[in-house]
Amino acid sequence: MRIALDAMGGDHAPFSTVNGALEFIRECGNTPPFIDLYGPKNELQKIIDSSDIKTNFISIINCDEVIHPNEKSVRAFKEKPNSSLVKSVTAVKNADADAIVSAGNTGALLTSSLFILGKIEGINRPALAPCIPTQKGGFILCDAGANADVKPKHLVHFGIMASAYMEFLVDIKNPRVALLNIGIESSKGNELSRQAYPLMEEHISNFIGNIESRYIMEDKADIIVCDGFVGNTVLKLIEGLIKHLFSWIGDSMESNSTTNSKTSLLKPAFNDIKNVLDYEQHGSTPFLGVNGIVMKCHGNSSVKSIKSALKSAQIAYNENLIDNIANRISKHLINNDSKTVNEK
Amino acid sequence: MRIALDAMGGDHAPFSTVNGALEFIRECGNTPPFIDLYGPKNELQKIIDSSDIKTNFISIINCDEVIHPNEKSVRAFKEKPNSSLVKSVTAVKNADADAIVSAGNTGALLTSSLFILGKIEGINRPALAPCIPTQKGGFILCDAGANADVKPKHLVHFGIMASAYMEFLVDIKNPRVALLNIGIESSKGNELSRQAYPLMEEHISNFIGNIESRYIMEDKADIIVCDGFVGNTVLKLIEGLIKHLFSWIGDSMESNSTTNSKTSLLKPAFNDIKNVLDYEQHGSTPFLGVNGIVMKCHGNSSVKSIKSALKSAQIAYNENLIDNIANRISKHLINNDSKTVNEK
Repeated sequence: MRIALDAMGGDHAPFSTVNGALEFIRECGNTPPFIDLYGPKNELQKIIDSSDIKTNFISIINCDEVIHPNEKSVRAFKEKPNSSLVKSVTAVKNADADAIVSAGNTGALLTSSLFILGKIEGINRPALAPCIPTQKGGFILCDAGANADVKPKHLVHFGIMASAYMEFLVDIKNPRVALLNIGIESSKGNELSRQAYPLMEEHISNFIGNIESRYIMEDKADIIVCDGFVGNTVLKLIEGLIKHLFSWIGDSMESNSTTNSKTSLLKPAFNDIKNVLDYEQHGSTPFLGVNGIVMKCHGNSSVKSIKSALKSAQIAYNENLIDNIANRISKHLINNDSKTVNEK
Repeated sequence: MRIALDAMGGDHAPFSTVNGALEFIRECGNTPPFIDLYGPKNELQKIIDSSDIKTNFISIINCDEVIHPNEKSVRAFKEKPNSSLVKSVTAVKNADADAIVSAGNTGALLTSSLFILGKIEGINRPALAPCIPTQKGGFILCDAGANADVKPKHLVHFGIMASAYMEFLVDIKNPRVALLNIGIESSKGNELSRQAYPLMEEHISNFIGNIESRYIMEDKADIIVCDGFVGNTVLKLIEGLIKHLFSWIGDSMESNSTTNSKTSLLKPAFNDIKNVLDYEQHGSTPFLGVNGIVMKCHGNSSVKSIKSALKSAQIAYNENLIDNIANRISKHLINNDSKTVNEK
């Protein structure tokens, strides 16, 4: 296997990417995948040379352009064909690599993946499927932001794709799939969720019904399906609310305490929780539905995060995730195009 | 002024409602509003008799039926015309009262208000507008769940109505109105938010643009506008996530600490925050756009909460909220019915 790593993607690149790749190779033992680092040759070579890890399983594909985090995605894709991001995606298209890992600009990576690799047959809307950790488990949220407007059948596809992904990568068999809604009964919600409910019942083997956002952290479902507008709102609200609460609790303990025990007591608890919650730093998000394995890491990714994303890409390749999704989707053709909701 | 109080609405009714009314009257001094308690005469009279507060400003309108929290709203409305909830709404229709306060079944109260009182002219979609507290302030979320599917112009109406409400009740002049979206630029989001953006710019004097859910707790906006599906998702996620985090932090501090200082240190901080966050217990949510003043308290309302809702109803009446909303809406007629999004 060969993985194309966008060595210039992320706030801590190329240090995090190169070292993530080297550590991943070491941990794989005798038969690691080959890693192609896409980025400026001299800069990357220096980091390789300064590492203790010596391996023949890494190489550099020189490219000098870099797409920055705030660049407009379509423009970046069009104007920087020689960037580390676009060239690593192109490598999969040209069969020079079997998967891409990038911590770069999410929009640019999604756009490049769609334009260059296209979609799995039967899939109209590829989706982002991050894992959101909770105290005692976690769930996959799909779609977390790729599609602001969807049809009911796309929600079914999100459930099917996330199920395939979860079965292989997290090793949960027949994961529980719930539809995010504002009530429990099938008659509740907006037109989209009301139309999606019976389709989910028909096509998703372990569909457990609607779930209200109040209960999503309680490990009642393994996969929570929604449109990308709602999913992105949920994702960012979790992030923002945790930050707000942590700061608030700290301030409040400060004002309620005369000792310095606040920091000594609260800090380990906060660190415990932060370590679990920091899915963005430690996890990777697959672009499900793209016709190729694309693993997106958070911009703030550490060496550890890059390593874990490479591992996910390896599993997805070994388990043949793309064919598996294509196969499942082919068994669940949904012809409800007349029932359009929010369709442009 | 005369307020119809659904004396049987809420988990702690009629104790909370009757005592809330008595305390409110006492605090108003010489010229309180009259309060009509709707509920079973004997039961309510006993609570009045056992109170220290003696007043001529309270009376009982006997009704023996009660709508329970889990009853289906339309059915409850139709089958229980003599319930405390429906009769208190009817009182406003018949000009026997100037406002309703209820901690009863939200759906039944909304249905009854719409069927009996109707809507303010120009308003198609009445909306729920709770105040969400933050560490240093708070914001009004509108719509928080009355309308799962809306058109762009309804979002403009939500902004106008919530502005009128906030100016009087919270005394913030020209509040900052933001559109909840998944990106900052006007081109971001779903079809609904993209179409709503220019309308908000045109019709809302202090429209400050899009806000991402990540930042809603940071007091960047006074009013945050969204459809009721997204708003209800946000409302319930805030509730659920706070509960999840508090329990998690407690567990984590327990396991990180060998002393019993956890409870002594954490509890005051949690209580501080809970006191602020518990908007549901202490605040009331107006049904904006209904042609009458309807204040909904949380089912778990305390005496204090009922008292504060009666106060809000009094202010809304004195400030002529309904006419004020009607007047503002009449100046912002929006004819974009062709641009339907999610319309049934």
